[in-house]
Amino acid sequence: MTRSIDETHAPTLRSWVESANHPGTDFPIQNLPFGVFRRRGTRECGRVGVALGDQVVDLTQGRELGLLDGLPPQLVSATAASSLNALLAAGPECASGLRRRLSQVLRHDASPEARVLVPLAGVELLRPVDVGDYSDFYASIFHATNVGKLFRPDNPLLPNFRHVPIAYHGRTSSIVVSGTQVRRPCGQAKPRDAELPSFAPSHRLDYELEIGFYVGPGNTLGRPVPIDEAEDHIFGLSLLNDWSARDIQLWEYQPLGPFLSKSFATSVSPWVVTLDALAPFRCPAFVRRDGDPQPLPYLSSSRNTAAGGFDLKVEALLRSAEMRRQGLEPFRVSAGSTKDTYWTVAQLATHHTSNGCNLRPGDLMASGTVSGPEEGAQGCLLEKTRGGTRPIELPTGEQRRSLADGDEVILRGYCEREGYARIGLGECVGLVLAAPA
Amino acid sequence: MTRSIDETHAPTLRSWVESANHPGTDFPIQNLPFGVFRRRGTRECGRVGVALGDQVVDLTQGRELGLLDGLPPQLVSATAASSLNALLAAGPECASGLRRRLSQVLRHDASPEARVLVPLAGVELLRPVDVGDYSDFYASIFHATNVGKLFRPDNPLLPNFRHVPIAYHGRTSSIVVSGTQVRRPCGQAKPRDAELPSFAPSHRLDYELEIGFYVGPGNTLGRPVPIDEAEDHIFGLSLLNDWSARDIQLWEYQPLGPFLSKSFATSVSPWVVTLDALAPFRCPAFVRRDGDPQPLPYLSSSRNTAAGGFDLKVEALLRSAEMRRQGLEPFRVSAGSTKDTYWTVAQLATHHTSNGCNLRPGDLMASGTVSGPEEGAQGCLLEKTRGGTRPIELPTGEQRRSLADGDEVILRGYCEREGYARIGLGECVGLVLAAPA
Repeated sequence: MTRSIDETHAPTLRSWVESANHPGTDFPIQNLPFGVFRRRGTRECGRVGVALGDQVVDLTQGRELGLLDGLPPQLVSATAASSLNALLAAGPECASGLRRRLSQVLRHDASPEARVLVPLAGVELLRPVDVGDYSDFYASIFHATNVGKLFRPDNPLLPNFRHVPIAYHGRTSSIVVSGTQVRRPCGQAKPRDAELPSFAPSHRLDYELEIGFYVGPGNTLGRPVPIDEAEDHIFGLSLLNDWSARDIQLWEYQPLGPFLSKSFATSVSPWVVTLDALAPFRCPAFVRRDGDPQPLPYLSSSRNTAAGGFDLKVEALLRSAEMRRQGLEPFRVSAGSTKDTYWTVAQLATHHTSNGCNLRPGDLMASGTVSGPEEGAQGCLLEKTRGGTRPIELPTGEQRRSLADGDEVILRGYCEREGYARIGLGECVGLVLAAPA
Repeated sequence: MTRSIDETHAPTLRSWVESANHPGTDFPIQNLPFGVFRRRGTRECGRVGVALGDQVVDLTQGRELGLLDGLPPQLVSATAASSLNALLAAGPECASGLRRRLSQVLRHDASPEARVLVPLAGVELLRPVDVGDYSDFYASIFHATNVGKLFRPDNPLLPNFRHVPIAYHGRTSSIVVSGTQVRRPCGQAKPRDAELPSFAPSHRLDYELEIGFYVGPGNTLGRPVPIDEAEDHIFGLSLLNDWSARDIQLWEYQPLGPFLSKSFATSVSPWVVTLDALAPFRCPAFVRRDGDPQPLPYLSSSRNTAAGGFDLKVEALLRSAEMRRQGLEPFRVSAGSTKDTYWTVAQLATHHTSNGCNLRPGDLMASGTVSGPEEGAQGCLLEKTRGGTRPIELPTGEQRRSLADGDEVILRGYCEREGYARIGLGECVGLVLAAPA
């Protein structure tokens, strides 16, 4: 199916939930992202909800009040689960139908039903999806080149990059929702001038500013997904922080790739913004330069080229303990856009299944660090500080080559385009705790 | 807890299940491995069972007949599940208690209860564990050196190998139980003499002879497992075939490690042999050579040294379509032992959690290819054929540099020691199907 711009995207749509109509909100009625929450202070099971302004629309309550009447039974039961997995499995047409229904019942001229609302301030947001497998790509040629220069100065961009979407399997057990504190890992590292490695708290902790894509229906083992069907298997996206311990990574990563340097934590934002909501923010696929190869036929189609990518702005901000003490706002370290990724999400999904590997509902694919060509668009501190040689300076005068204990990393993402309502992803926040004693 | 040799290991023990007393069986009463089965021809949910001779002991039935009376309630309910995960979560003492009880009620002098038996020939064996995360190590220095010589002739064993247990995250969605046919993957590869890569069926398909370890209780995120407690978190082991497409691997693996070259299928044997059952087959940990570094303190303890490794013999056999046509037995390609792995399983588990990463019940860790120093102990065709330069010859005269369509790969594993009953792991079998058209 093609996700086209329709009445749910009309900028003139307003909701009877007043806070959804404020121009700066991440969650206008044109967005309607899905998440899982419980009322703060309770131990109730997670409930599926939709963010709207400063409220959560409780779909369990909505169902009981008849707001979902007439929708397919599997969809209605999916809204009663404690994760989004069943909703993801239901397929893009079901999910679009639910979004259209919500758009109708929440808009200004519908009958207000305050009983479905729970204030965002009164809920705890949970990890929205039970992730079966998590694969992290490396889809930004700017990131690959910047990092390559540091790890392999004479050979920054490896010969495979322009041909094959590079990725590694990540760890799912340590995927945590935004707000979860992240403990600095210990690990083996060998500084360049040391003869032997030692085991100690990482002293080169970093974030990576990424987008995570949640898989919808998925495919059967042995049955690759053709490029023209690939987006049907992507439900939506969220922010993702691929926390990385660079000193551990540098010592362990050959020949099998990163392992403990990444597996101590991966943070995801709580709201899954659907590809439906992002229909107005498509942009041309990455423009290959003269001399760049064209994608191989299995990664190429006129539909993929026409659908293109997304112009989703992302930024990473940092707030140190001292900045919090002084009441300072988070400091923006980098800002980029997913328009700068070398591969489209359809290409990533098709490549992932091209060997027959099966994607399951709720599997997570991430973009890799979103970096762009401009100064300021480097999506991690390793790149931003040129491997630590050019520290950044915070408003307090503190310097950072890597993250310090007490630093808070805040990722944000949003789409803006003249003539359309702003669509936000919310935030993905993590505070760095000291390593275990 | 220490798993010591006790009356359940006595070589004189016999069972009232006669086939369990045959000298050649993999499943004497001293073994009692756990699996999940359903009666052939039904669509019933998986049931927890124990292999004994040529029979499966149905624990659901055993519970109903009172054979588990008096065991902890959580353990009894774990036997009623459709996977082994709850049993793994129950912890080593619970699992040992269940094994002791089974040893008692199934031995020769106990009252025979034929109603708990289902013939192995009449069941379908299912994937025994819902694997949350799968991590594949690279624990054989012989494998690392042999493969290193082929991929990096001037730099075969990387400097980190002797210090840090190397691993990569694997894919869980494509873990299949023995007997599942494996479709040859397509993928990108670039032959050395080609200017550009192309997408085609892999022509360098290989197996890797490995042991998989299933995690028991596991740890909380941020709380590493000390080396002396590590084995408490390993429930048991099985055979594992880490199918590998070498041509895809060579092109994709830098810098983030293997991805699609492995994720199309990983086969596991259906029976999980407990560490309890293997108590008589411990052996000294790998003897480091002069000049090899000692493990860093977090990977070292007198208990780990005393506990050592396992002398578990493993072998890989191949049977081509032509061999089946001629009625020939499988041909043994390689045979080794887990005694030759550089790291103990305790070291692997401790290293895995040393950054705070959480292991969950049912997570799977694999050894990496088990290769030894002797000719014939190379656990994959890449090594065995020296990168394809020395093909093996099958009894039909057919040659193999890599696997052909119709080839069947059979992994076997067993422990033998004078004065003890032979303990077998059963088989892990996979037949190679042609790539999708």
